Amino acid sequence: MRYLKASDIDFLAIGAAVLGSGGGGDPYLGKLMAKEAILEKGDVRLIDVNEVPDEELVIPSAMMGAPSVMLEKLPNGKEPEAAFRAVESFFGKKAYATMSIEAGGINSCIPVYTAARLGLPLVDVDGMGRAFPEIPMVTFSLGGVKASPMVVCDEKGNKVVLETINNAWIETLSRTVTVAMGLSSMIGLYVMDGKTLKEFGVRGTISLAIEIGHRIISAHKRKESPVDSILEVTKGYRLFEGKVTDVQRDLTTGFVRGKAHFEGIDRYRGTGFRLDFQNENLVGMLDGKPCAMVPDLITVLDRETGSPITTEHLRYGQRVMIIGMPCAPIWRTEKGLAQVGPRYFKYDIDYEPIEELMKRRAS
Amino acid sequence: MRYLKASDIDFLAIGAAVLGSGGGGDPYLGKLMAKEAILEKGDVRLIDVNEVPDEELVIPSAMMGAPSVMLEKLPNGKEPEAAFRAVESFFGKKAYATMSIEAGGINSCIPVYTAARLGLPLVDVDGMGRAFPEIPMVTFSLGGVKASPMVVCDEKGNKVVLETINNAWIETLSRTVTVAMGLSSMIGLYVMDGKTLKEFGVRGTISLAIEIGHRIISAHKRKESPVDSILEVTKGYRLFEGKVTDVQRDLTTGFVRGKAHFEGIDRYRGTGFRLDFQNENLVGMLDGKPCAMVPDLITVLDRETGSPITTEHLRYGQRVMIIGMPCAPIWRTEKGLAQVGPRYFKYDIDYEPIEELMKRRAS
Repeated sequence: MRYLKASDIDFLAIGAAVLGSGGGGDPYLGKLMAKEAILEKGDVRLIDVNEVPDEELVIPSAMMGAPSVMLEKLPNGKEPEAAFRAVESFFGKKAYATMSIEAGGINSCIPVYTAARLGLPLVDVDGMGRAFPEIPMVTFSLGGVKASPMVVCDEKGNKVVLETINNAWIETLSRTVTVAMGLSSMIGLYVMDGKTLKEFGVRGTISLAIEIGHRIISAHKRKESPVDSILEVTKGYRLFEGKVTDVQRDLTTGFVRGKAHFEGIDRYRGTGFRLDFQNENLVGMLDGKPCAMVPDLITVLDRETGSPITTEHLRYGQRVMIIGMPCAPIWRTEKGLAQVGPRYFKYDIDYEPIEELMKRRAS
Repeated sequence: MRYLKASDIDFLAIGAAVLGSGGGGDPYLGKLMAKEAILEKGDVRLIDVNEVPDEELVIPSAMMGAPSVMLEKLPNGKEPEAAFRAVESFFGKKAYATMSIEAGGINSCIPVYTAARLGLPLVDVDGMGRAFPEIPMVTFSLGGVKASPMVVCDEKGNKVVLETINNAWIETLSRTVTVAMGLSSMIGLYVMDGKTLKEFGVRGTISLAIEIGHRIISAHKRKESPVDSILEVTKGYRLFEGKVTDVQRDLTTGFVRGKAHFEGIDRYRGTGFRLDFQNENLVGMLDGKPCAMVPDLITVLDRETGSPITTEHLRYGQRVMIIGMPCAPIWRTEKGLAQVGPRYFKYDIDYEPIEELMKRRAS
């Protein structure tokens, strides 16, 4: 157990955004919310998964939709609590802790906000070890845990409780409700007991994110590149260096779907890179050939500062370093790949681990 | 107080479809459900509004969406009860009775089904005195009653509880959920106490529908036209006689929107009639001039049998009699017309009562 202070939130937000693979939302807003709540209510206890008693409930807290929209349609600050309490009241039992459903700027900070506001501990775990665009894409799903009952709240004060027969219906109904609410919402879902969490959670995601963030900010202070340091702690690879030549985005489905094109610089001069995304980066192609793909992590970093750039903040002319990192092992199982592999996202390619792709590229 | 027997359901379904103004759903399915429930569980007590104690709760039961879809995506029979019980559990109080939200084939029968299944009385009242396409279009809204909390259930077993800040958000969110569920759902909403129901309900709708249905079926047995008899009890008018020359429909918005064109026969030979609808008939135009409009009732009857034809069952070549009937007086108030008058449905015309229009037409 340790305490999360307001100063940790900068590390958490930036580190989680590296793990967020371009998604998980712009850290800015989540960071403000989490820091403000800690300053007002006190430091948040970060507990290990093993500290959660088997029979106690944990309720994850998150935002859903297009984070770019949330920057203009600001939360009122009561939605995460409203969603959390509505899930609790559904079960007629108080929750022991909250947790993060995914690693990513906003969705690592929202649970800190909820934990601080409600005086609950935050569990050092998440359900992805990265960010993913759809609700059922959590390791808990592989263990048969249901997202239902799920509560969706908006900043206007509307609240929707969904009880569905499976996670696909949760995705369909919560997405359609979030789109109708104006493309963003705060949610509570995937309630589970400590026993289940121990079995299926991706452990240590919060402390890993803080460690990554700490390395980035320290390197920045020393005026060094943090890239090697990030690759060391995440076991990742350099994929490409270049500048953004084009970005296409479409928000109408409730996701940020699109493609970004890059032109190589320095030792990548003369080559081109294409990155496809759906909230998160899905597949990176170097000169038309896949060089990293879901569920492995692909993150775009600012070439000067090493700060992660989310898919929503990619802009023409940015000079970037693109890195790839291996995903949590559970995603590489047959069940895991069926749920979040390239074919799920309609790519006609078989998954190849980033380690293999890099080995082939080197030879 | 009287009892509704299975044999009354034929009268209720056909009579409510006359009041349904082309909407309220095909009576066929609702009739089967209500009859089956009565035969299995016993007759349903039909009670007067005055028999509901002021402080007791009444929960309306209804289906939402495009009834034509429900004919192919059949209910499993448990949704109305699931929706009703979920609303009850929200309030933590048992309901005293159920009621109909609108007059119309399916939505007059669903509450009978729910009443029979749950052993509750049905109140002889509704919230429209006709059918309307959108959730907030009930007389209760004029009294400030909220549709929220509303429960939406589908035949697959999914359940959604909506708590919103106003009725417009209930309409938006429940419509979007119903569309995602496959265009039809069963709902519970507009919970109110006996006192409020007495003040804002349209009284006697169920018994009026039964009376109309009885007149149609009796006339049919005597091989007579039931039209005069219907017009007598509803204070209605003949608007047009002719045959259907064209029908256009669009289901994509979760409504059945469209237009039907008719060519006059007999004394209407040489004239044309156009009927616009959104689930229900909205405006009827004789040779391009409005001759009846919302909130007044417009219903298309089969010219031979006098049976009402819903907007979903209008077909090329049908020979029909179109009748118009005055709406419940509360709809003719300024507030009522703002909610369901022609301008709400985007017609650039002022409401004129059918009595006035007929007087002008006669002169």
